[in-house]
Amino acid sequence: MFKELVKKNRSYRKFYGDYIIDSQILLDLIELAHNTPSAANKQPLKYILSNSEDRNAKIFETLAWAGYLKDWQGPEAGERPTAYIVVLGDTEVAKDFSVDPGIVMQTILLGAVEKGLGGCMFGSVKRSKLAENLEIPEHYQILYVVALGKPNEKVVIDDIRDDDVKYWRDENLTHHVPKRTVDELILK
Amino acid sequence: MFKELVKKNRSYRKFYGDYIIDSQILLDLIELAHNTPSAANKQPLKYILSNSEDRNAKIFETLAWAGYLKDWQGPEAGERPTAYIVVLGDTEVAKDFSVDPGIVMQTILLGAVEKGLGGCMFGSVKRSKLAENLEIPEHYQILYVVALGKPNEKVVIDDIRDDDVKYWRDENLTHHVPKRTVDELILK
Repeated sequence: MFKELVKKNRSYRKFYGDYIIDSQILLDLIELAHNTPSAANKQPLKYILSNSEDRNAKIFETLAWAGYLKDWQGPEAGERPTAYIVVLGDTEVAKDFSVDPGIVMQTILLGAVEKGLGGCMFGSVKRSKLAENLEIPEHYQILYVVALGKPNEKVVIDDIRDDDVKYWRDENLTHHVPKRTVDELILK
Repeated sequence: MFKELVKKNRSYRKFYGDYIIDSQILLDLIELAHNTPSAANKQPLKYILSNSEDRNAKIFETLAWAGYLKDWQGPEAGERPTAYIVVLGDTEVAKDFSVDPGIVMQTILLGAVEKGLGGCMFGSVKRSKLAENLEIPEHYQILYVVALGKPNEKVVIDDIRDDDVKYWRDENLTHHVPKRTVDELILK
């Protein structure tokens, strides 16, 4: 059921570091992206796929992890994502990428969850370093990075308290994400 | 299977105009939205739900339909969407709504498709008119409108030709959407 898939699709930041994600899985996820709606149908997004140790390392070092967890600098070796999809905007196709990145990344992550995987979207990326590391041509704008892997952490949703949106980890390292209630989201 | 859901989720613009969408369906779709990731977990989006004739009409008149179909001004009475979700950005929560609208709208539409419905995202909205029609408080920014209904048209995906992204309708009124191939989407 789709609702279960949506609920299971949490932002995961710790993974089984030896779990290999086959290139075909990444291609399947891009096939999902290919079937999503796009603003004015322009389809300006392009993707770089990574599932090799070398390329993964070049991407990993450019990501800022979990802004609200001040004591945690990101997953240790052995817990890192084992694949990535770098989401680029082709400026020869469009100047504004509108809703497309959100549509595509959510679809990719839902597809990953169905395959027993999971991941996280990164907006906080050292873009010039990543462009250099992956030798990305200048007319591509780096928009986001989707990290993927076999999740190795528990993530739960809590009702928000005192309007505090900061996620946190408890003593068992369960990751808690406060969410506004459905009622709060609807204007009467 | 999730892939089938993604493929079935096309942008539909003609509907069975007498098909009633229950309020509970709209609440279920907002519950999906409540379970999606949000940039820095801020959750700044709010929603106005509509499934009454009166409110639907107030929204319909503010939407620009199918930019590439120059001879078609939108669905006739009897073919119009029977529900809407207006997506608002709460400027008291955030100033920038980032990837959230795309994430949420795609999730809502996929949820709708699973329920035998379908719809379309609108970025081209007469926003000041809509704010007036629905008496939307000033601190909410109108971001997008999602139209929903029981689809009454056939939409197919074709491989793109000559880089022409414009969708079109054939003599049987089947709606054709040219999509870039998966191969074209991936940087080697």
